[in-house]
Amino acid sequence: MTTPLIGAIEAGGTKFVIAVARADGTILAQRRVDTEAPSVTMPQVLDFFRAAAAEHGPLGGIGVGSFGPVDIDPASPTYGAITRTPKPGWAGSSYLEWLAPLGVPVVVDTDVNAAALGEWQAGAGQGTTTLAYTTVGTGIGTGVVRQGRPCGGFTHYETGHILPRRDPARDPFAGSCPYHGDCLEGLASGPAIIARYGLSLDRMADTTEAVALIADYLSDLAVTLMLVHAPDRLIFGGGVMKAPGLIDSLRGRTETKLAGYVGHARLDPGLASYIVGPGLGDLAGITGAIALGRSAMAGANV
Amino acid sequence: MTTPLIGAIEAGGTKFVIAVARADGTILAQRRVDTEAPSVTMPQVLDFFRAAAAEHGPLGGIGVGSFGPVDIDPASPTYGAITRTPKPGWAGSSYLEWLAPLGVPVVVDTDVNAAALGEWQAGAGQGTTTLAYTTVGTGIGTGVVRQGRPCGGFTHYETGHILPRRDPARDPFAGSCPYHGDCLEGLASGPAIIARYGLSLDRMADTTEAVALIADYLSDLAVTLMLVHAPDRLIFGGGVMKAPGLIDSLRGRTETKLAGYVGHARLDPGLASYIVGPGLGDLAGITGAIALGRSAMAGANV
Repeated sequence: MTTPLIGAIEAGGTKFVIAVARADGTILAQRRVDTEAPSVTMPQVLDFFRAAAAEHGPLGGIGVGSFGPVDIDPASPTYGAITRTPKPGWAGSSYLEWLAPLGVPVVVDTDVNAAALGEWQAGAGQGTTTLAYTTVGTGIGTGVVRQGRPCGGFTHYETGHILPRRDPARDPFAGSCPYHGDCLEGLASGPAIIARYGLSLDRMADTTEAVALIADYLSDLAVTLMLVHAPDRLIFGGGVMKAPGLIDSLRGRTETKLAGYVGHARLDPGLASYIVGPGLGDLAGITGAIALGRSAMAGANV
Repeated sequence: MTTPLIGAIEAGGTKFVIAVARADGTILAQRRVDTEAPSVTMPQVLDFFRAAAAEHGPLGGIGVGSFGPVDIDPASPTYGAITRTPKPGWAGSSYLEWLAPLGVPVVVDTDVNAAALGEWQAGAGQGTTTLAYTTVGTGIGTGVVRQGRPCGGFTHYETGHILPRRDPARDPFAGSCPYHGDCLEGLASGPAIIARYGLSLDRMADTTEAVALIADYLSDLAVTLMLVHAPDRLIFGGGVMKAPGLIDSLRGRTETKLAGYVGHARLDPGLASYIVGPGLGDLAGITGAIALGRSAMAGANV
């Protein structure tokens, strides 16, 4: 009998990337499905997996890296369910229930934990013991992988909602988070940038001021992650981070705020090898979802 | 042959508590030694262990919960050494080297990780999967235990140096941290309180304003820990936390800042069972150091 294949779902707010891969990670089939109500999206996912299995061989497990909030506690009765979201139909919707007809074990984690796992395994996080992967886009979130396992507590991390320092004289924008107003996501996410400036960073004629401000807020997260998780490396990805100069500015502000307190060989002057961009680009999520599927197949929740 | 005994050191900035215990944790001998230069303090520690071993039986391992910064990475060549400190003689001083004459395995972790482990095993953290123990005293620090193991990254956590939000109109005090000025430790530690008010909280006639201010700063750490570690429970201990009303005020400010974002059955209204005081009081550190010694004996770094 041949080794079973791995199913993988990168479940994002606007699209699902779904794939079937060999145990070694080689992708045999891949598709993109729009994120609509689960009753529309999930049957397409099932059809894809069934067709891929018919063509390439049976699946042995499925990994899901999902937008959240999602219940990622394997001991919880609602493990694998989206807990609450404005997305129509998704609140309470369970990946485990939708995928049950396929009859294979499923592991569900957050999109950022999956991306962190992908980067740890095959990207810019290779060789690290503790890795923090932060995405700055529609939302802000961080996945932490420690010794090859995604971390979490009673729920997944929500680093986008930390409260960075503010200087209202410099930035009078009140923030766009519906819960906290001026938490990090409310100040530095893609929608916050558009709400403040009327434009995304890639459409501004001169981004100097905006990049400096956003870097300043994001550096509060970088400092916090260093002080509270001490990762070997920080990856910052997502659409906002593509703005030219932003990662350099983030490195500079982070180093200034640390003020030499965390002295360690891992921290190179300028932090150029400590704070880095993703190595896998858009492939981090699906790579991580495949890794989650591998662990589902192995019967272990990573 | 009887089971070997466990040696334990709770190494604080002003005193060392040293003990010898049975494998079940029963303390057979205990002593307090002033923290002077290691060349003064450590020989007394060695004498105590030798005398206790002669009386009660041989040691099988020693656990150390130490003030920091201390190298707690077992893979590091300087594992077990204090890395830098103004305390005379301690910078570069290694517990492993001092204790080597005893010929037993030694595990070194931070004082707060040891206390967290003690509280998790026998105190207010029992039954949790992820526990965060914060001490607010001469310094501010947090130990996190996850599934019975102290957490750390490339170095131990340094939560005392996060940057809480400030309102200089309310609190013009510039902060007392030699590195960051107004980081959390610079604003809310015992020395910061004395520097700001000229008095510690337990000597003030009216603590209303001071307690509200300190609680406000500490709630930034509580929120950060929740968003970045999602512990099942937060323990806040240490001398400053003994101020009447402080923990209640901390609960209230934390709940306000979360603004309902983290909704979970673990979070009771008012957070009275989520943010708690220590269960072991002053025994947390030595209890945790014994647990570290047990793991040293088992040959595993917890």
